[in-house]
Amino acid sequence: VTRVVGLGGGIGASRLWRALAQAVPQQDLTLIVNTGDDLWLHGLRVCPDLDTTLYALSGEQDAERGWGRKGETWRCRDALRELGEQVWFNLGDRDLATHLWRTGLFHDGAGLSAVTTGLATIFGVAATVLPMTEDEVTTYVDTAAHALLHYEEYLVRYRAEPDVRGVEHRGVDRAIAAPGVLDAIAAADLIVLAPSNPVASIAPILGLPGVREALLVTAAPVIAVSPLVLGRAITDPGEERRAASRNALMAAVGKPADPAGVAAMYAGFCDRFVLDLADESYAANIRSLGVDVAVAPTLLHTGEPPEPLLDVILGAGAAR
Amino acid sequence: VTRVVGLGGGIGASRLWRALAQAVPQQDLTLIVNTGDDLWLHGLRVCPDLDTTLYALSGEQDAERGWGRKGETWRCRDALRELGEQVWFNLGDRDLATHLWRTGLFHDGAGLSAVTTGLATIFGVAATVLPMTEDEVTTYVDTAAHALLHYEEYLVRYRAEPDVRGVEHRGVDRAIAAPGVLDAIAAADLIVLAPSNPVASIAPILGLPGVREALLVTAAPVIAVSPLVLGRAITDPGEERRAASRNALMAAVGKPADPAGVAAMYAGFCDRFVLDLADESYAANIRSLGVDVAVAPTLLHTGEPPEPLLDVILGAGAAR
Repeated sequence: VTRVVGLGGGIGASRLWRALAQAVPQQDLTLIVNTGDDLWLHGLRVCPDLDTTLYALSGEQDAERGWGRKGETWRCRDALRELGEQVWFNLGDRDLATHLWRTGLFHDGAGLSAVTTGLATIFGVAATVLPMTEDEVTTYVDTAAHALLHYEEYLVRYRAEPDVRGVEHRGVDRAIAAPGVLDAIAAADLIVLAPSNPVASIAPILGLPGVREALLVTAAPVIAVSPLVLGRAITDPGEERRAASRNALMAAVGKPADPAGVAAMYAGFCDRFVLDLADESYAANIRSLGVDVAVAPTLLHTGEPPEPLLDVILGAGAAR
Repeated sequence: VTRVVGLGGGIGASRLWRALAQAVPQQDLTLIVNTGDDLWLHGLRVCPDLDTTLYALSGEQDAERGWGRKGETWRCRDALRELGEQVWFNLGDRDLATHLWRTGLFHDGAGLSAVTTGLATIFGVAATVLPMTEDEVTTYVDTAAHALLHYEEYLVRYRAEPDVRGVEHRGVDRAIAAPGVLDAIAAADLIVLAPSNPVASIAPILGLPGVREALLVTAAPVIAVSPLVLGRAITDPGEERRAASRNALMAAVGKPADPAGVAAMYAGFCDRFVLDLADESYAANIRSLGVDVAVAPTLLHTGEPPEPLLDVILGAGAAR
């Protein structure tokens, strides 16, 4: 058995987890999911990254959009617009059921771990899906134009367009890693950092007390897949917006917006960094950080076969 | 100007308010609406009687069902069922937008009066629609089979089938009438008690400290329309269920389930009781309570013209 533990956020991560789940039995996968994007909307608790993960692993995800549920409709959102609401977050009618279900359990006193386990069971997800914490941690982006914006508001409502002065994961220093998170890292045979936004999606997990330390002491190889591909053009508008957000947030934390900048954020605990084929030129720079480099096609959403990437990732586990 | 103040609940009341709004300018109408049926569902605040009132007066109501919004769909409810939820309350996708809007304002600290005024404005309702109170008052039905049930659960989930041992309007004795309620009664030229369930929909309003006293001292005529017609067969399943609930709740508070039993609950402050044409036999009994009697066709939903009923109601105001 190879116990694979993944750390990640939403869309980028879910593509990799879906591919991994075809090479590894789902029950051997433990996914530690960013909750820094979670938000309260109209009294409902919305967990974008957890839901994207669950929808992706259950086959419930809309394949074309890459987020939300397949066969979705937007009647409630449209009715909210008719009430004069500035609806910027896309609440689908079927997706709303997930938020209602979760919020109802919250009001009954359940924690996010139990709620997430419940949803995973209902959606038939055999992987262990863990919120990074049960505490509220919220990523705010400090923008010149709008002052502090919730990360989802910055990304979705303002399309990652405002200039960014800083990023804050509010509450992360006082938050406690959710039950199972540190245990999973300690017991892992292989740890994978998803190609998620390093600042918005990975940094909140790494910022939880104990997580970085657990990654430093684990004997399991830690392998990161580059979330930032410079050598290929981006054609999808959603990807473009997410790339703009990645670049702006990397700059805001003082890192170059390139694969070496990401690797520098992970150096110390990261054993191997997977560069996209098109970005091989960064290999030497990353090796100089003491991080091993592998090269593979990484853009799974473009339709390229996942096997070479999976071989590189799982090979790291096997070579241990 | 004839300032008409109505007291009532949901469906039965809304039929009368809609008819009244064709005979009286809507801005001269003030409706004091029962909130004892309000409930929290999945973290959302749902106000069945307020919403029925707003939808009816705005033309937004589904005419065939008599509740909810026209052109409604049920995608979210169906998705909740797929999650294994016992969904007994019918949350339409478009109706959900109202609950989300209200709950969002609640979380921002707004009270139910401001939220209701906001919804009335958005829906283009010119009448003044007041919740009876901003405090939480909840009607529970004590049943042998299920112990205490929220009234909506008793009516909708269990179709008014369980035996009823008692009724409780929890919180009503400590609740404060919402801003404008006592003022509207004091300033009224005519006060109308809607043909709503006397125990579930009218009694909570009458039970608020100050309301019964205000009705006792007002110089305006107080006229009640019988909610309970015995001389005609009920053909609609929804009406049948509501009639069963009326009868059971009347019995639970020790009143005969007939027009005289209702009139006895209103005697003291009620000047005139409108009997349905088919129930004239109760006139003498009601007059013996010191309540004047008028007779008119009262079942507006059967398609009978509202004018004779409106003449009797508005005539009482004019004759003052």
